[in-house]
This record gives sequence, structure tokens and C-alpha cells, in this order.
Amino acid sequence: MDIFDKYAQIAGRHDKVLELGTDPFGVRLDEILSATEARVDGRHTILVGTNNYLGLTFDEGAIEAAVEAVRTQGTGTTGSRIANGTYALHRQLEEEFAQFLGRRSCMVFTTGYQANLGMIVGLAGPRDVIYLDADSHASIYDGCRLSGAKVVRFRHNDPEDLDRRLARQQEGEAALVIVEGLYSMLGDVAPIAEFAEVKKKHGAWLMVDEAHSFGVFGERGRGVAEAQGVEEDVDFVVGTFSKSLGGIGGFGASSHPRFDVLRYCSRPYMFTASPNPASIASVRAALARIDCEPGLRGQIWANARQLHEGLAGLGFDLCSPMSPVIAVKMPDEGTAVWAWNRLLELGVYVNLAVPPGTPNGVCLLRCSVSAAHRSQQIEEVLGRFGQLAQELAAARA
Amino acid sequence: MDIFDKYAQIAGRHDKVLELGTDPFGVRLDEILSATEARVDGRHTILVGTNNYLGLTFDEGAIEAAVEAVRTQGTGTTGSRIANGTYALHRQLEEEFAQFLGRRSCMVFTTGYQANLGMIVGLAGPRDVIYLDADSHASIYDGCRLSGAKVVRFRHNDPEDLDRRLARQQEGEAALVIVEGLYSMLGDVAPIAEFAEVKKKHGAWLMVDEAHSFGVFGERGRGVAEAQGVEEDVDFVVGTFSKSLGGIGGFGASSHPRFDVLRYCSRPYMFTASPNPASIASVRAALARIDCEPGLRGQIWANARQLHEGLAGLGFDLCSPMSPVIAVKMPDEGTAVWAWNRLLELGVYVNLAVPPGTPNGVCLLRCSVSAAHRSQQIEEVLGRFGQLAQELAAARA
Repeated sequence: MDIFDKYAQIAGRHDKVLELGTDPFGVRLDEILSATEARVDGRHTILVGTNNYLGLTFDEGAIEAAVEAVRTQGTGTTGSRIANGTYALHRQLEEEFAQFLGRRSCMVFTTGYQANLGMIVGLAGPRDVIYLDADSHASIYDGCRLSGAKVVRFRHNDPEDLDRRLARQQEGEAALVIVEGLYSMLGDVAPIAEFAEVKKKHGAWLMVDEAHSFGVFGERGRGVAEAQGVEEDVDFVVGTFSKSLGGIGGFGASSHPRFDVLRYCSRPYMFTASPNPASIASVRAALARIDCEPGLRGQIWANARQLHEGLAGLGFDLCSPMSPVIAVKMPDEGTAVWAWNRLLELGVYVNLAVPPGTPNGVCLLRCSVSAAHRSQQIEEVLGRFGQLAQELAAARA
Repeated sequence: MDIFDKYAQIAGRHDKVLELGTDPFGVRLDEILSATEARVDGRHTILVGTNNYLGLTFDEGAIEAAVEAVRTQGTGTTGSRIANGTYALHRQLEEEFAQFLGRRSCMVFTTGYQANLGMIVGLAGPRDVIYLDADSHASIYDGCRLSGAKVVRFRHNDPEDLDRRLARQQEGEAALVIVEGLYSMLGDVAPIAEFAEVKKKHGAWLMVDEAHSFGVFGERGRGVAEAQGVEEDVDFVVGTFSKSLGGIGGFGASSHPRFDVLRYCSRPYMFTASPNPASIASVRAALARIDCEPGLRGQIWANARQLHEGLAGLGFDLCSPMSPVIAVKMPDEGTAVWAWNRLLELGVYVNLAVPPGTPNGVCLLRCSVSAAHRSQQIEEVLGRFGQLAQELAAARA
């Protein structure tokens, strides 16, 4: 048999999507014009499907910090953090993150994906049990699988369901509860305060992935746990550099006195080349800006409101209350793919999200706003969505 | 129980290592002076424990390409390859790699670790069987575990053992054989030509990880399979950007017509932010230099010979024939840690490698040469090793 035969069905489905237009999973941004604009297939396109929440990919300070770092320290470290790959920069960023988060210690990972792998594999072993929100990101699922821990899924954003499942916990196991702050597909927020009560009741540990909420939620930008006033009940916080911080990499932080044992026990941290100097330098600059410029958060929330209210006003079915991630429900996959293509033709890039990448089999046009969007751009986007709404209505008539 | 109790034993062992001096897994390079020199603890130190095989981290063209890319395209993409994270640069690098390797297609991953995860998870599923060289890198082991495939280990570099195990293969499974080109701990080379014969005999598939051999082995620098003249028998080739190419990231390549199905079936490729523009740009420049400057390979092999012959001449027990990775065997862990600290005091950084990170429980001082080492530097390194040899002999006397 051929090694790719197992993908015959999924390849057939992909071929059908291709018949409807552009490959939604193979879009090439031919030229990057700004944090919110690109040239795609010769068209000027407004990007409303990124994770560039604060628009910091074009932050001048971050860019020049990266330039300085690559010129003085080279293009890469060629080594892992446990060998020759720990530079002064890595330690500085870890200290700055720890201070910003009010945690004793912080570890930097080479990608956000590996941050989740490394934290989960490090925290939970074959004798432990992970209690996992069913809608968790692929990197969390992969980390759980790699850890060898027993995995118990609970219903998405349902502290009562978690409570019931934790009640069945065996003696002698460590129980690790994992939730996200903001879920990236539907744009809904976790009730972390309620989860914290449940985990305390059962003596479990709580890890929160603030990948999509860091820099966006909370008075200081520390995430949903800060916004809900329960940071002290979160034992382990994970995040990424590739969203609000505009870079690449991730972090894990904790105040547990033995947390740093993961530096020589977590394989996805130990056995990978460390982030290159330019990446670390740009993230340091972005973190400093998030720390000193709360107005960025004001701007993204104003933009979120404008797009959310505008889309609701056009009659679209939105999955969640207002947040920087605004998921527009489509009736079926065919319509979703057609609408996604139509928006792209009209110069608007959003994310197409279809099963199995979405919860409960929904088909979505996932929009996300950036603090860098101008109000006028959001008006333009709403204009295109208005046109789409008319065309969808005409097709149904 | 505390979630870190499971690490009590390993933490105790680490504490004992710390009593002997510097933390070998926590060395901080305070200032990077060149591809082969850093300041460590206030001392000028020659780096003989990196993977900077061609010294390209300070390649002028690569650095300026990174500068140009970060200034024009920003510090990060904030998206995965299947969403907003595919830029023209990513595609260009993939095409250049495919052409360089003589393969139909190439996929770029965000880290070398994720290249192995993504390739293995993509190629092998729960109904397949992976035949794995026992000395494989942690990222290969992690990929196998994540894939859910049945894993059969065979004896390191032993095609006969592989042959016996493949003979027991069940009908209807895809069998994927995974080996590395150059093994990074002992510096020994795989007999890929013999493995290729075995895989053909049994109708299996062969993946070779050329992480430590790309750019170093073969007339064109394509790796050990090229050097042994058997590239056509290798179905899938994997490599990293963080060694000879001086960057961060990795690649997988193949001429299989259905290879690109992995772009929407391999989670470690799909669910991670794509490499940032500066990283991709620097790797493009480094690849072009490897392509057009075979003298780099001549230089690293000359340096390998100088260090290998010099260490052998000093009476050290070397694990393998001459290659850019030269592993010096130590009698026990205590001696290894002491010797590693002594070299660091003398201004020479090598890698300490001890179980479980090494095969067969050996304790090693792992040295690696770079094309950027000057002959005079290698003489200095040999001088320090000579001093070490005298001190070790005096301690034994």
C-alpha cells in the first residue's frame, strides 16, 4: 500500500474545496504592505484574519531591536537552551516576562506550539491526569498525547462538568486542569474564576493558555485571568509571542519554587534550537510597549466593538459576545467556502474555519481585529460583508 | 502530592552536578563575539560545542537579508501556514530547497524539532509501523509517540537487525524506516546505502534526518545520502535550519506526488505560527552560499581532521572516525562533569553529554568544529585538552 493512502478521503474533500476557488489553506500573501494590508493575487487586501492583535509586527522599536540583534549576535544560536543556545538576551526576556506577569520564573520556548508541548509534557506524566477543555487548541491536545498522562475531557467552558469529573479522581495522582483564556475560533472567554474554585476544591493544578488573550485582556494586558482577578489561582500560565507580541516563540511562567526543573526535564524545551537573537530582541521591545502603552488595548477593543456591532447589524449570526475574535457562522461548508472566496475577491482576507478544526462541526468565517486597523478600514470591511449578505440572500431567494 | 514530586530524583542528581561547578545545562553566553567565540562568566571562550558547522550565523549576506526582511515585512507573521502565515518568502525558500535537493516538493517548518514531529506524524498513523534506529534524536522519538504508530526499535546503525524486524511485518501496514545521517552525540554516520537495500527488499519507506549532515556531507552538501550515492532510495528527507544554515526552522522534502497532502494533514505544520520573514530570508541566503561555495565544506573537514587527529594524539578515547562531531569518552559522570568545568575555566566550551541523553550510558565531552574555526583556535583548544589530559593523569596517579 502507499503511505499516503490513508489520506484519500481528506484529499478528496480538499479537491472539492479547490473546485470552488482559491485554496483557503494555501493563500499566499505576495507582499506585506502593513500590519493590516497585503497584496494577494494582485489585489490590495485588508487583513481581517490574523492574530496581529496589537499591530506590533511593524513596531519601529521592535524592528530596530531585531536589526541590532541580528547584526551583533548573528542569525541563529545553532544550539538548544541546555547547550550553547542560552544568550544573555534569552535570560533578560525571561526575567522581564516574570516581572511583567508577577511570577517567580518564566521559561522561553522556540514556538508557541512548543510552549504548550513543553509545559504539558513537563507538568504531567504517565501517572498524572489531565482535565482538558474539549475545545482546546491542537497544540494542547498534542502536548497531552505526548505527555503519556491520562486525559479526561470536560465540556467546553463548563466548570460544573469539570467538578463532576474531578470528583472521580483517584488518590495519589496529580490533576492538571488546562483551559485557554480566549478561544481562537469562536472568540469566547473562559470562566477562569469558576474553574479556579473547582480546582481549589479538588486540590488540582490549573494551567491557563493566554495565547490569544495576552496583551489584550486585563488592566495590564496579562490576560483573562487578570481581567477576572484570579491570577493567584492560576498555577501555570502559557502564552505565545506570535500574536499580540508580533514575533515567534512562547513562554511558560509560574511562581512554583520548583518550576525551573522543567529546564532539564521538558524535552520540547531541551531538544530544540533556542529562539534566534532577532526574535528575542523584537519580543522584548514589544513587551515593553505593551507594558507602557495601555492605549493599544483601548484601540483594539474599540475596533472590536465597531466590527462586532457592524456585522451584527448586517444580520450575520455571530458566535460570541464582543471580543477581538469575531466568528461569523455560515450555514454549511459549501456556503462558507463560497463566501470566503467572495470576500477574498472583494479584497478582504478572513480565516475559513471548518470541521474538524472547529467545535461542534460549525463552519465559520473567523474575523479578528487589530489595534492597527483604522476605523475607515473596518468600514470598508463592513461594506464588503454587506455586499456578501446581499448576495447570500439573493442566492437563497 | 506536589506536581513536581516526580522529579525529585532527577533534581537531586542535578543538584550534585551543580556542586561540582557551573550548571552544564544552564551556561549563559554573555556576549557573542563571532561564530566561534563568546564571553562566558567574564572569560573569552572558544566555542567547540555548537552546531554552527559552516559558521554562517555571521554570514554578511544572511544578516543583511534578515535586516531587509524584518524592515519590509515585519517581525512576525502572526499566523500559521494554513491561514495568514504563508508569504512569498516561504514559498520561495521551499522552491529553492526542492531544487537544491532535486526533490519535487519541500515543506518548511518553524523549528527543526517540529520538522521531525510534522513529518513523522504526517507520514505514519495508528495503523502504520515505524522502524526506528535506537539512537534517534529526541524529536524523532517524540514524533513517533505523537503519531500513534506502532514503534519498533532496531539496533543503532544495524541494517541486519532492521532486516530481521521488517521480516515480521504484517500485511497491510505502511512501514516507515527512520534513520539519521550523522548522529549528533557520537558523530557516527549511518550506513544509508545498506538501509536502503533492506527497505527496498521489504517494500518499506525510508526517511532520513540530515539535521547534522546537511551542508557538510556530499559533493553538493545535500547530506550523507548524497555522499553514499543513494538519494533516490530515500523517500523523505528532513533537515534543520539551525545548524549548517545558521538560522531557525526545518524542512521536509520528497518527490512523492502526494507529499503536499501533509500541508493540511500534519498538525505540527498546520497549528503553529510560520517562521518570521527575517528567519526565512537568512536561510535563503545561507542556502545560496552552501550551493555556490563548496570550499566551506573543504574547510570544515580540514578542521575536523585537525581536531580529531590532535585529540587522538593526546591519548583521548574518541567514539567515532573523523567527522565534524568529535565525542571524547570519559570514564564516568563525575570525571566528565569535572573535565567539562575545567575546560570552561580554561576558556573552551564543549558540550557535556551524559545519560539518558547518550547511547549506552556513555559520558562524553562532545566537541564540534566549524568551518569558521581558525587553525590557530583549534591549536589552542588542543593545548587546553593537553592540559586536561595531564591533570586527569595526575589525579589517577
